[in-house]
Amino acid sequence: MQLYNFFRSGTSHRLRIALNLKGLDVEYVAVDLRTEEHSGTAFRAINPQGLVPVLAVDGEKGAHALTQSPAIIEWLEERYPIPPLLPADPDARARVRALAALVGCDIHPLNNRRVLEYLRRSLDCGEAAVLAWCATWIDAGFQALETMLATDTRRGAFCFGDAPTIADVYLVPQIESARRFNVDLTPYPTLVAIDRACAALDAFRRAAPANQPDAT
Amino acid sequence: MQLYNFFRSGTSHRLRIALNLKGLDVEYVAVDLRTEEHSGTAFRAINPQGLVPVLAVDGEKGAHALTQSPAIIEWLEERYPIPPLLPADPDARARVRALAALVGCDIHPLNNRRVLEYLRRSLDCGEAAVLAWCATWIDAGFQALETMLATDTRRGAFCFGDAPTIADVYLVPQIESARRFNVDLTPYPTLVAIDRACAALDAFRRAAPANQPDAT
Repeated sequence: MQLYNFFRSGTSHRLRIALNLKGLDVEYVAVDLRTEEHSGTAFRAINPQGLVPVLAVDGEKGAHALTQSPAIIEWLEERYPIPPLLPADPDARARVRALAALVGCDIHPLNNRRVLEYLRRSLDCGEAAVLAWCATWIDAGFQALETMLATDTRRGAFCFGDAPTIADVYLVPQIESARRFNVDLTPYPTLVAIDRACAALDAFRRAAPANQPDAT
Repeated sequence: MQLYNFFRSGTSHRLRIALNLKGLDVEYVAVDLRTEEHSGTAFRAINPQGLVPVLAVDGEKGAHALTQSPAIIEWLEERYPIPPLLPADPDARARVRALAALVGCDIHPLNNRRVLEYLRRSLDCGEAAVLAWCATWIDAGFQALETMLATDTRRGAFCFGDAPTIADVYLVPQIESARRFNVDLTPYPTLVAIDRACAALDAFRRAAPANQPDAT
């Protein structure tokens, strides 16, 4: 399997965590977003959407490219069920998936590179306005997550119980991103504690942006 | 089951389609986004994130509220597997989920109400700039979807095969939204044909914004 990704991309980061938790080795293929490599013809032949990450796999029906991190993570869970990243009970699975989707749909998409570039170039936003934009959506999402998790009896060292789930897979890169955008995390002690528990695990540490071959 | 939703919300619309395709009857509870009802104390007691849709269900462990449409739709698929909204094969499931996630993560989150309000109020965007913003993300996503689907031999009358999947559940509300934002759909004949096939089905027609009790 080849992972087309970029060290600082949040969706790449979450997929690296999931792959590590599943104990899967992949070939790291760096796609440099800073030079717009993802928008070029070569990469669009792999993913017409021109976005990382892509997981290229050799299946029974030949090689093919999986796109969209939420879809790839569910594929990993179905193809490599051990260790599970979702609980067994449907209601519990819905809870974990909701925590993940809150990050994946309501925070991350608003703060990724193409959106911030649009703010700068088309709406003439300065860096203060860009950071205020990022903080708005991160704070809105983190306030909800903190409320949902702080009193949740199903929470353990991680978002759900005492083993990592996809909720943690999504949360940790978003906290990394929040720190990069100088968001004050003091109001979110539960999220910070979960992030610390994750950072103690090798699977999370190896997936961190700073530890990738294309990191600068 | 009670569905807390708003007629024009795209995530509410997609969940109504999924519920109809599963043949499930729910009590319609309108939450008026125009009067900020979703941000009030009463609704935040149901969903701390203050967003629709919410599906309130009576489970074995008592009543509870499911949030985040991607999580709720996967829950429906697990609890009510017939008719399936995902194919059986993991690679095919990943394909369908990727088409859905492209809409759910890369188009819809950028064009929803709270984001457009921020553009208007905090970035002083006029309506032309707001429409240009919406069109940018819809066009980027639809161009990728059109490319991915136009030559795909797995496509049938619908995004994947000849029965609706979650890919169609996500696509149709996004096309509805594109029309509302005056996006030219001429470059996307495959998407328009799929939308037309969906519109022929009662489950999609009954879910349309115009046919809801709170529609104006």
